[in-house]
Amino acid sequence: MEWLDALAECSEDSAELTRRYLTPEHARAAEMIMGWMREAGMSARLDAVGNVVGHFPGRRPGARRLVLGSHQDTVRNAGRFDGALGVLLPIACLRSLHKRGERLDYPVDVIAFGDEEGVRFQATLLGSQAVAGTLDPEMLQAVDEDGVRLQEAMREFGLDPDRAADAAYDRDEVAAYVEVHIEQGPVLEAEDLPVGVVTSISGAVRLRVEVMGRAGHAGTVPMHLRRDALAAASEAVVAIERICLDTPGTVGTVGMLRTVSGAVNVIPGVVEFTIDLRGERDDLRQTAQDRIDEALAEIAARRGVHFDCVPTHESGARLCSPRLVRRLGAAVAAEGFEVRRLPSGAGHDAMAMADLTEIGMLFVRCKEGISHHPAESMTAADAEVAARVLLRFLDRFDADERETTGREARAA
Amino acid sequence: MEWLDALAECSEDSAELTRRYLTPEHARAAEMIMGWMREAGMSARLDAVGNVVGHFPGRRPGARRLVLGSHQDTVRNAGRFDGALGVLLPIACLRSLHKRGERLDYPVDVIAFGDEEGVRFQATLLGSQAVAGTLDPEMLQAVDEDGVRLQEAMREFGLDPDRAADAAYDRDEVAAYVEVHIEQGPVLEAEDLPVGVVTSISGAVRLRVEVMGRAGHAGTVPMHLRRDALAAASEAVVAIERICLDTPGTVGTVGMLRTVSGAVNVIPGVVEFTIDLRGERDDLRQTAQDRIDEALAEIAARRGVHFDCVPTHESGARLCSPRLVRRLGAAVAAEGFEVRRLPSGAGHDAMAMADLTEIGMLFVRCKEGISHHPAESMTAADAEVAARVLLRFLDRFDADERETTGREARAA
Repeated sequence: MEWLDALAECSEDSAELTRRYLTPEHARAAEMIMGWMREAGMSARLDAVGNVVGHFPGRRPGARRLVLGSHQDTVRNAGRFDGALGVLLPIACLRSLHKRGERLDYPVDVIAFGDEEGVRFQATLLGSQAVAGTLDPEMLQAVDEDGVRLQEAMREFGLDPDRAADAAYDRDEVAAYVEVHIEQGPVLEAEDLPVGVVTSISGAVRLRVEVMGRAGHAGTVPMHLRRDALAAASEAVVAIERICLDTPGTVGTVGMLRTVSGAVNVIPGVVEFTIDLRGERDDLRQTAQDRIDEALAEIAARRGVHFDCVPTHESGARLCSPRLVRRLGAAVAAEGFEVRRLPSGAGHDAMAMADLTEIGMLFVRCKEGISHHPAESMTAADAEVAARVLLRFLDRFDADERETTGREARAA
Repeated sequence: MEWLDALAECSEDSAELTRRYLTPEHARAAEMIMGWMREAGMSARLDAVGNVVGHFPGRRPGARRLVLGSHQDTVRNAGRFDGALGVLLPIACLRSLHKRGERLDYPVDVIAFGDEEGVRFQATLLGSQAVAGTLDPEMLQAVDEDGVRLQEAMREFGLDPDRAADAAYDRDEVAAYVEVHIEQGPVLEAEDLPVGVVTSISGAVRLRVEVMGRAGHAGTVPMHLRRDALAAASEAVVAIERICLDTPGTVGTVGMLRTVSGAVNVIPGVVEFTIDLRGERDDLRQTAQDRIDEALAEIAARRGVHFDCVPTHESGARLCSPRLVRRLGAAVAAEGFEVRRLPSGAGHDAMAMADLTEIGMLFVRCKEGISHHPAESMTAADAEVAARVLLRFLDRFDADERETTGREARAA
């Protein structure tokens, strides 16, 4: 917890925590993290894109490595646990092994990804994509709000953008990726559990919907002669909620809705709203999507209005590897806690890492589900539980065991 | 119809019809109307606030007068029938009597009210309030968008603002007020009828509603742990619609709704919307209001959200006098048409005149219910039907018959 507090001091703003990719604060945080890694008996370095990579050697030569980690960067006015916990907790665990003079069979790398939130260059997961070997070289041309290109920012940070691809790991040398992260949701708190095992990182689709009805005078048009775009949109909002309640493993949100050129005394003719639909499995999300489409078609036909839906984003679910879910669950159970499996509705570095190797995630309870906000909070006791779970997991992990990668699991 | 076209030429803008109170175009229109009045055998004058008042003498000395009329002013970019029809159709009817050398038992005044729409001074019904004797003298200080005070505008128009009160009629000299107006709604068109008899001018209440739920991450908060302000507001919109469908004589509209500081991936924490609720009788409107209050309380309790409702406007219904409704209906039936009684959801000069005398209104079908728009339209054939109905009504009207005034009917 002291490390988390110290790391939170590395901020672009003294009043609030903001630490973006390739800023002087990123450099300060990286120095701090490398110092703690060395205390833990690890070698530490910056990779070609500014990720901090620590290496804890294993006993057995040639064994594949386990990669642990999360991101060092933050959103603006952030909390101090998002990302940082998943970097510092593994280092603390390895330090306790190191202090007892213990080694694991296999080597462990801990990575503090430089960019996950994507605040500076409006593109997320740059650090983990570089490690997974999926970073689009064109991203080096991305420009921040001050007009600085990513490649220039890398040079200023002391990196060579021409060597960015060197950050990629060799697929054959990696056994798995495991990330510890605060839940950023209210499930564990509601069920009074300190930790949970992630089953998948949800896939998502976002849509922009325009509802076209017929405007009219609020006083002169009787109810039965109306084609009210807002009444239709409201039925859609309620239907989306009901469908996602009834379709396991999905959540659906209408985050923005507005009457277009509305007035208090005018029947709405046009309404715009957004849909954010997520599913822990793509087939479940598709089921919900199909039911929503049906509901909208029924509302449109009955009310004489038209829904125009345009997808603005789509990403598939990334499944956690069943063996990692099982092994993390066994470690939780061994600590005497109920094993709560849950999907991650938010995105994480593990999404990008799923293109490289199997992924697993351990969630830690956070207060009221609040994240991306200074009120983000978790207890030292829960961090302690998570550390014990991770140590048990490390103790039992078998770097030779193989399963499908996240990508293959998805394709299946 | 030619008169309507000619009057529409009196516009502040050559591309569209806009004619505001006390403008040079108002003066031109008044001159034109006075000319037509004189053609119809009437005396014609401007009253103390700029209303055109025509007088068609009756046969019987001392008989109370019937007042007919509507307004000469328009909204911006208006249609040519709103108001103008109710001024010109009575003049045309009286002209036909005059040409045949006929007189009525009782005198008839036709008034072209200077201001009904309230566009220039942001206050409606100034002309008819002056005639009814209810104009607040403080209104003379109202300022238009160019900084001109109403009293200055009156002077510029050639009127003496200190004598504004002279426009008021003597209550004892007036038998009734009858207004012909386009429906500005779709009911008559939907039922294939040229005219309808108005039963009341609806009362209205407007509310501003704030819904407070709990914001949250669209991906990480499961459906059952949400307190979504938009889902709650959407249920409210649908409930308001259903309640007004089920409560006869009421219409309810949510004209504006928006998620406050919403984002596609955030569960809405705050939503604002408006309610416009109208009823042809105040008790019916109150019934709907009570049901809406109950529905909102139920939604709030079930969802753990809070509705904060603030009334922003309230006006009582103005009932048309039963004897005028009956007599207008008899005239419609005598012309061979079904008598369709309907409320007026929009406001009219008759609302102000109800404080002076009994009111009655005849609605004329308009195209697609469109009004306050250049596409506002009605047919010459329907105007002809309305004229025949009005002539039959004038023929049978008894200026001695008394009933409660609009105000007394309301109090009852």
